[in-house]
Formats: sequence, C-alpha cells, structure tokens
Amino acid sequence: MSEAPRDIENLIEMMAKLPGLGPRSARRAVLHLIRKRALLLTPLADAMHQVAISARECLNCGNVGVTDICEICASEKRGNGQICVVEDVADLWAMERGKAFAGRYHVLGGTLSALDNVGPEDLRIPRLLDRVATEGVNEVILALNATVDGQTTAHYIAEQLEGTEVAVTSLAQGVPIGGELDYLDDGTISAALKARKSF
Amino acid sequence: MSEAPRDIENLIEMMAKLPGLGPRSARRAVLHLIRKRALLLTPLADAMHQVAISARECLNCGNVGVTDICEICASEKRGNGQICVVEDVADLWAMERGKAFAGRYHVLGGTLSALDNVGPEDLRIPRLLDRVATEGVNEVILALNATVDGQTTAHYIAEQLEGTEVAVTSLAQGVPIGGELDYLDDGTISAALKARKSF
Repeated sequence: MSEAPRDIENLIEMMAKLPGLGPRSARRAVLHLIRKRALLLTPLADAMHQVAISARECLNCGNVGVTDICEICASEKRGNGQICVVEDVADLWAMERGKAFAGRYHVLGGTLSALDNVGPEDLRIPRLLDRVATEGVNEVILALNATVDGQTTAHYIAEQLEGTEVAVTSLAQGVPIGGELDYLDDGTISAALKARKSF
Repeated sequence: MSEAPRDIENLIEMMAKLPGLGPRSARRAVLHLIRKRALLLTPLADAMHQVAISARECLNCGNVGVTDICEICASEKRGNGQICVVEDVADLWAMERGKAFAGRYHVLGGTLSALDNVGPEDLRIPRLLDRVATEGVNEVILALNATVDGQTTAHYIAEQLEGTEVAVTSLAQGVPIGGELDYLDDGTISAALKARKSF
C-alpha cells in the first residue's frame, strides 16, 4: 500500500486494526476524514486524546469510566444487594440500555479458557468473591454469553459461591422478542421448549 | 446512549459517523482502544493530528498527499501525455495498486448529479480542461465508475474534449479476472459479449 504518503499510510494501517474495520474501509474512513479535516479529523484526534487521558477502569467492578470508582458503584441507589456479572464493558452498556436492572455490575474482562490459558486470577473472579463477602450481596446474576466459554465461566463462579447465602441466577434462555422460530437455531428452540411456562 | 461517561460517549458518536462504522461497531472499537490506551489510543490520536497538519490536496490533480503538488504530478517520469480521470482519491490509489498506469491522474472529487445539484464547476472539470490545453496531453482515459452518474460525467467530459486533438478512451468493460459467469449481472455479460475479441 505504498500509494499514499507515509503519514497517511501509517494512519490507515492503525485504523485498519480496529475491530470492524479492514484495510479497505480504513482507507475510505481516512479519506473521508482528510476531506473534512478541520471539521472531523482534528476534533476526532482531540476527542481521542481526551479519552486517553480521562478513561479508567473502575477499581471495584471493572466498568469503564472517568473516575476511579464508576458512577454505578458510587451510587447508593444501585446498592440493592444484586450484582450482575458480565464478560465485557460492552455487555454492561447493553444491560444499561435495557434499563431493567437496578443493581451493580461486575465486569470479568473475559471468560475462562483452557485453550487461551485464561484462569480465574486473569479475570476479576477473586475480586467478585471479595465483593460478595463484603458488600452485603444477596443475589449474583450471571449474564454471561451463551457460548461454551461463557457457560464454563458461569459454572465455575456458581461453584465458588456454593455454600454461601447468596442466590446465584442466570438470564433466561428462550425466543428473543420479535424472533421468528424459522430463523432460530435448534438449541434455542429446545431451550425455550424446556423452559416453557403456562400462558 | 447515556451508559458511558460524556467524553467516551462523545468519541463513540464521532467514530460512529465514519463510513463503514455504526453505533455498535464504534462502541466496540472505542472499548478496544480504551483497553489498550497507551498502546493504541494515544498513538492513533497522534497519527490523526499529524495527518490533520500535513495532509493536503494536490493543487494540480486533487490527489491527497503531504505536498502542494503530489508526487505523481511532480514526477517527470509520469508526464507521458496520459491523464487518467477518476472520481475519487480511493480510485486513484486502486489504479496505483494495479501498477498498470504510468501517466498522471485527475481526481474529479465526485460525479455530476442533477439530483444533488452537482455541476461541472463543483468538480475539477474546468481544471481538467486547462490541463489538457497546457500540459501536452494526448490521451484522456476516463476511469469513472460504471454507475449512471459516473457514465453521465464521462459523456460530459468527452463532449467538452470534442474537437481537440486529444484521444478520449475509457476502461474496457467485461468479465473480471477470476469472475464466474453465474455470479455476474446481465449487464456485464452482455457488455462482455458485445466487446468479444478473437481468441
């Protein structure tokens, strides 16, 4: 890709490494930014510098914010004894968009994976057990992805919490709202059938 | 999207406006950047500032570079009397990757469009006619996209050059290398058939 000058090529290569972008879309994005550089490129660079300075992970739950303790952990209102365990900050944001959960979160930062050599101490599992012991928690809701690694991690956490007073629950599995049976995989359909309830 | 702090939300919104990214992929990209902010976010912001300062459009052809006259226009070697007319800098880069063209370029910066109110003076068409008159050009190759607007623009330019000594050509249309007939649209197949040549 030697057709653009070094500076620009360099920017394209960095953009191409972002999740969701490839070399072609990175080129398009960079050309778009250059065309409107006063309006878009400089403000975007400034916004990135700003976030690079201000962003930090919550020391308590792992959420991304601009303070050492995130807004949710700092809010008295959210301390209702429920902790929702998610893999990733994106999952936390998705839950918050749903506006259905009023407790606090715990972001693991990944899942256990024998293949990638990720053990409990690489995630925030010890910190979760600490919180359960000290924060007056009465329910841990496992909102992990319905993948093999996600479910392995859920089982591991449930095991660690066995023998405590804490209720361990997980998100219901079934047909998504607006979902069409014809487009659902067999696993989802059979899980929804098993968990059927009176109408 | 009030689940992230203002600074981060702001960055996500700006990223989401880039071509090829939407709100969801912008969120993923920003979280990825925050997770590796020393390694990725700060260098990316620096690279953007660098390009915002250094990037400029070639005064002659409209190519994007870091000098007032781009490398291609400045190179004696490329002054072979051929000008390849493209819609966009991305098209110029695509031609350069092909390494098949040894002349200079002219980037229109779009296509004529009655609907969007884009006339010849909004593109670099007057500048093209100037160059043809003064740069010792003997061939203008119209490498415009095979869309309605692209072809309208090609016809308009060809008309403007009528009566001059300059040969006006366009890229051949036909079956792409490695293309399978079954996957080609009818227009391409019939164009390729009309332009068939002895084997």
